[in-house]
This record gives sequence, C-alpha cells and structure tokens, in this order.
Amino acid sequence: MARYLARIDIMLKVLVKDPQGLTVVDGLKTLGFDGIDDVRVGKHIEVTLDAGDQAAAERAVTEMCDKLLANPVIEDFTFELAEVAAAEA
Amino acid sequence: MARYLARIDIMLKVLVKDPQGLTVVDGLKTLGFDGIDDVRVGKHIEVTLDAGDQAAAERAVTEMCDKLLANPVIEDFTFELAEVAAAEA
Repeated sequence: MARYLARIDIMLKVLVKDPQGLTVVDGLKTLGFDGIDDVRVGKHIEVTLDAGDQAAAERAVTEMCDKLLANPVIEDFTFELAEVAAAEA
Repeated sequence: MARYLARIDIMLKVLVKDPQGLTVVDGLKTLGFDGIDDVRVGKHIEVTLDAGDQAAAERAVTEMCDKLLANPVIEDFTFELAEVAAAEA
C-alpha cells in the first residue's frame, strides 16, 4: 500500500452558464480591475488515500468523482495524482 | 497586451477544520471506499485576463485573491499562470 494525494478540479462544463463566475467578474470590475475576460468558479478537492499502486488510486479517484464528488450532468472533473509519504511513523 | 489564464486554488488553512471535507469522507466511506485518509474541499477559480506581461498578470491575480477571492483569515491561495491565445481574430 502507498499513500496518494489526488488534487481534483471540478468545473461546470463549458456550455453551462456560471452565475458565480459572472458575479466575481462584476466584483472584480467594481474593485477597479481591468482586462478581466472571464471567470469560472469550481471546486478543488484534495483526497488523501491509500491504494495498492498508482493505477488503483486513479481508478478509485475516478469512481469517487463519478459517484459523489462531481455532477456528471453539468460538471467535468480533472485530477492529478502524486504519491506522498504516509504520515504514520 | 497578452491574455493569461490563472488557475487559482483556494483552500482552508491547514489548521482550520474543514467540515465539508469531513462530510465527504463520511459519504465516500458510506459508498464503500476504503483507505480514505483525508479530504479537504476548497475552491478552484479560473480567471482569464489581459495584462502587459506575465509579471503584471501575476501581480493582478495576487491582488484579486487578497482583495476578493480568498479570505486571508482562514484561507490560503496558490495559482498557476499561463499565457493563452486571445479569442478574438
């Protein structure tokens, strides 16, 4: 078993309107920021998990996203996986 | 002017309890996932902006995080910046 850190980004699909992002654009413009073209707001989830190998960890994280973390109807997810040192001595 | 995409991750500071993350851990365990050690839930924000150069874009994004996007009391932010092709012809 090894320990892995999955850094998952979950964003609304490109064709789905993002009202939270539009609100942030307005807020930034009100604060005086120029040159803002677009803002999209999504979730960043970091999952630390134990798995037999990198491939098993990848399968587990994909399944977590499919079953719980992302809404497949309106969201896409991507993730990076890296082996990390286990915390226990 | 060039166009940049900033991919910003905003997470609760390590010492701040993350109730949303704990809820996700419970949900994953209920779904039968083993070996989950920890989950932290944060925000992922993608800002597309025009700036004179990479350094100016970096300054602008840092200021956006400080002033609006992140709560400096309980959150830390990190971002990656990449030049992208402008959309207009």
